[in-house]
This record gives sequence, C-alpha cells and structure tokens, in this order.
Amino acid sequence: MTAVLPPGVTRGREAFRVAMSAALDRLHPRLRLVSAYHRGWVDVDGTPLPEGGGKLLRPALAMLGAEGVGADAEVAMPGAVASELVHDFSLLHDDLMDGDTERRHRPTAWVAFGMGPAVLAGDGLLSLATDLVQEVDTPAGRHAERILARAVARLVHGQADDLEFESRGDVTFAEYLTMASGKTGALLACSASIGAALAGAPDRTVEGLAAFGEQLGLAFQLVDDLLGLWGDPQVTGKPVLSDLRARKKSAPVVMALEGGGPGTDRLRAYLAGGDEPNEQALRELAEIVTTLGGAERVSAEVERRLALADAALAGIPLVDTVRADLLAAARYVTARDR
Amino acid sequence: MTAVLPPGVTRGREAFRVAMSAALDRLHPRLRLVSAYHRGWVDVDGTPLPEGGGKLLRPALAMLGAEGVGADAEVAMPGAVASELVHDFSLLHDDLMDGDTERRHRPTAWVAFGMGPAVLAGDGLLSLATDLVQEVDTPAGRHAERILARAVARLVHGQADDLEFESRGDVTFAEYLTMASGKTGALLACSASIGAALAGAPDRTVEGLAAFGEQLGLAFQLVDDLLGLWGDPQVTGKPVLSDLRARKKSAPVVMALEGGGPGTDRLRAYLAGGDEPNEQALRELAEIVTTLGGAERVSAEVERRLALADAALAGIPLVDTVRADLLAAARYVTARDR
Repeated sequence: MTAVLPPGVTRGREAFRVAMSAALDRLHPRLRLVSAYHRGWVDVDGTPLPEGGGKLLRPALAMLGAEGVGADAEVAMPGAVASELVHDFSLLHDDLMDGDTERRHRPTAWVAFGMGPAVLAGDGLLSLATDLVQEVDTPAGRHAERILARAVARLVHGQADDLEFESRGDVTFAEYLTMASGKTGALLACSASIGAALAGAPDRTVEGLAAFGEQLGLAFQLVDDLLGLWGDPQVTGKPVLSDLRARKKSAPVVMALEGGGPGTDRLRAYLAGGDEPNEQALRELAEIVTTLGGAERVSAEVERRLALADAALAGIPLVDTVRADLLAAARYVTARDR
Repeated sequence: MTAVLPPGVTRGREAFRVAMSAALDRLHPRLRLVSAYHRGWVDVDGTPLPEGGGKLLRPALAMLGAEGVGADAEVAMPGAVASELVHDFSLLHDDLMDGDTERRHRPTAWVAFGMGPAVLAGDGLLSLATDLVQEVDTPAGRHAERILARAVARLVHGQADDLEFESRGDVTFAEYLTMASGKTGALLACSASIGAALAGAPDRTVEGLAAFGEQLGLAFQLVDDLLGLWGDPQVTGKPVLSDLRARKKSAPVVMALEGGGPGTDRLRAYLAGGDEPNEQALRELAEIVTTLGGAERVSAEVERRLALADAALAGIPLVDTVRADLLAAARYVTARDR
C-alpha cells in the first residue's frame, strides 16, 4: 500500500513555514536553535539544511479545517502553528524520556544539545503555542484556546499512561486505546478542528472535525506501532524491532496477548523485564506476536478507525474538495508502507 | 536580620491548600504523586507528610493583590494556584536540568521517580496552570491569562539565559539582571498582580503591583545567590559554597568580577571550567569574591531593589493593611538570615 501526498496536505506548506519561522523567532536564540534543529531546518551549529522532513500533517489539517468551512487557510494559521509547536514540544520531551538517541536518522535534540536545552526548548514551544492562540482576541480565538488547552492536557495524560505501562506486566487493549487517544488522538483532534473553530464554524462542525482527527490519530498510532515492530529501519529511522526491544506494550503485542494462545507466557515474561535480549530471541518474540494474530488484528483496527474517521466527516457540511482532501490525507498518513 | 512570617502571607494558606489540592486532583495519578512529593505533601509512596515546607509566597501575593483592591481573596484563587503551579513546574524541570539531587533535604523528584515522570509532571503542571486561569471566562480572566502567559514566556527565557551563562566565561551584571528578571522577577510580578487583575482592578494598579513583584523577585534572587555562596547548609538545604562549586555566574561573583581587583584572573579562570575543585580552593575563591566586595555590593543591590518595590506600591491606591502586609512580606522573604 503506497500513496502520494495529497495536494490538500502540501498546499499551505510555504505559508505555514513563514508563520512557523516567525513564531520561532520569538524564542530565546538558544531555544530557537534547538527547535529549528529538531525540525530538521538547521544543523547543530545553525547552518540551514535543505527543506527538512516532516509531513506537516497537523498544520495541514488545521488549514483544511478553515477551508472546509469556506474560510481562508490564513485564518487557521495561529492554530496550525500552535498544533505543530505542541507536537514538537511533545517529541522533544518524549525523546528524552524514552532515551531515544535518533530521530529521522539524526541525533535527537537532547543528544545534540544536552538535556537542559531540550527540556527548556520543549517548555518554550508549549508556552509559545498558548501565546499564539491567546493573541487571537475574539470569541473564535477563545474557542481555539480551549481546544488547544484540552489537547495539551490530554496529551500529557496519555504520555503519563504510556510511562505507567512501562512498569506493568500487562495492559488491556482498552487501556492501550485510552493511552493512544491522549497521546496521539488528542492533538490530531485539535489540529483537525482548530482551524474551523478559528473560522467561527458552528460547534457541530468543529466537533465533527475533532472526531475525524481523533479517529485518524488512533489509526496513525496503530500504524506507527506496526512499523515499530516490523517496519524497515531505512523507512522508520529506528532499529528493527525497536518497540519490542524496548519492551513497549505496543498495539500488536497487546492485541496478541489479549487474544491468547501458544507463546503468550513467554511474551508476557519478556515484557515484564529482564536481561537484554539477543537478536534471535527478539525475532522469535516477534514471530509469536505474528502467530497470535497481532499484526492482522491491528491492521483490521486501523481500517475500523479510518471508517470511523470517514463517518465523522460524513455527518457535517464541508466544502467538497476539502472533504476529499481530508479523506486523502487520512489514507496517506496511515499507508506508510505497512 | 531575622523576621517573623507576616500574617498577610499565612492568612489564606488553608484555603489555598484546598484549592491546590483540588487542582492537582485533575492530573494523572502518577503525575499527581510526583507533584505532591515535590511539594513536600507526601512521601515517594504517597504517604501524607506533616505540613510540607514552602513559604507559599506566590499564592499569598496573589491573594493579597485581590484584597488590596477590596476584593475577596477567593477571587484570586485561580491565579494563586496557577502561579504556584508554574513555580513547581519550573523547579521540577530546573532540578533536572541543573542535576540537583536534593531540595529541602530530600531527594529531588527526578532522583526519586526518574527523569521521565519529573519532566512530564512539570509539563502537566504548566498545562494545568493555563487551564485554571482560562476557565475564568470573563474579561478579568483574560487579563489574568495574558499576565500568566507573559510570565511563563519570560521565565523560560530567563532560564535559557541562565543555561547560556554556563558556557560563558564572563557575564556582566546587566546581563545577570536580565536573566534574573526573567527567571525570578517575571513570576513574582505575575503573582503580585494576577489577583488584582482577577478582581478587575484598573490597569495602573495591576501594573504597580507587577512592578512591586518584579523588584521583589530581583531582591529575592540576589539574596538566594548570597545564600548559595555563604549560606548555612542547614538552612539552605544545599552544600556549602554550592553555587561556586557549580561554577555559577551568581550575583556576588559577577559583581566581584565587574568591580575588578586582585584575584579576578584566578576567579575568572576557575569559572571558565576545569578540574573538580577541592574544599580549600573553593574557600579561597569565596574569599576572593568577598575581598572584591561581592557580598557587600549584592547586599546594597538588595536594598535598592526593595526600595524600588516599596516605591512601586507607593504610587497606587491599596487597602492600607494590605499595603503593610505586602511590605512586610517583601522584608520577610529577603531576610532569610543573610
């Protein structure tokens, strides 16, 4: 399954980059450097790099949300930038908390600059995101503020769930979904709805877009978990079987355990902790997850979530071309060569 | 110089504790535990401790601000709690960034719970602070929101300055003041003014209270720096000469270097980095700072800042007893046995 980046996702990219750059300019120079490095815009010494990676999905959703209700994409910009800033904030802190040393084939920010600058850059980005939306001093701006604040609170809650999972031997799929709703669903719900909110759209439309983003977020996280187990290191930028190596209670593992069957005990014992596994043991554990139907069941769940995302959009009035762009974006970001 | 905790600082304490506790209840249980531990409310396993330390200066200032303009202290509560939450957020991240292992004679949160939970608890507190003030959906609430957001942005900026200082051989006193304004002045300015803002006081009054808090913050930081060099470890909870040991460009050191004289070169060479110093070398360096007038000049600057704080209050209409409480609070928190 492959896909081409839909035009709805790429269209506003240049305007976003200008706005994002202006926002980062408000940061302390040191934190701006760390943030620009993290985004792939510059090298450790500040040398500009050719257009950095990143799908810019969140800003694209925000801009599409405004366009979907007949407004100009520019109306969504404070929300588009804020969503991306919150995303960067969470990644900066996440990489540190997880001890991840590489992201997109480069050293993570805390490795490149040290722990202090990475923590503080994250703090600065979160503060900046709040500021940008707060500065839209209209009722629509306040609606957007509440959407952003709720997303941040849920995001932190989801990350805390994820942390908690580390010290637990077993996790149900329902618990996994609650965690993923917070960790990934909340910010995508915010991104998909904040543009329409800034455009002053009716609550029902804003909520429909939020539901779309939420389901897309879950689908996205499930795909990420599939890649974390079986993804090609060249594509994911992470070592093979990385989630299993880190004993993550990722979706395929949780699904495999919940289904039960041969190898469950061995898998559960491994997840509970112990010695560093060798490559052979990891491959055997991954095989157990596959045999127990972990991959298949997660793939089915991805499709179910995408159908729910589609259904959320079906219920609300939207500009037709934008609806098509949103659906294409959902398909694209969940394809990712799984 | 000693002082008794003025009644204005202690009066609202019980009401604050109730509101703070309700706010922390909104956090993920894991983050609530880390936060309550950090506050000295509970042990690592959640066992309640006898009334934890902390002067609760920030909430006291917020409540006094409301009372000073004739409102009930309760009006200030979202701002009082938010100020203290931002304070806790910054300490949680600061302890980690500085690698500090003890606070008030207990292991710091990142030592007790790990880096991840400490970072995430800080994030959760910052998000919660924003939420509390945002929920006051009135023009006064929006004024308070802007005050809080500005304080957080300046706080992060000041901490980034402080980080930057670590990699520099020399820092001017003007640069030091800019850093301290952000790191300590900004949040005290917020605390002192947010209660009056929530009470709907005129801008001039709110700004006067902010100026009072800002100057008090600078005085407070200068005293902290004096204690960081010559404070009694029993009182400060930090090892003797800790700031010098950490090669901090603290106020007495910066003042000593800026004044110039014998020993300046040796002091500057030490601050630039090198081997772990022994106790004898540290005592000699402290002696150089004293001889160069570092302590004296910082003490004089404390008095100057306190006079400016008083002057800021003199220009605005305030309930007389509250004005006296604020002045007493300023004297109290800058006394601290220096």
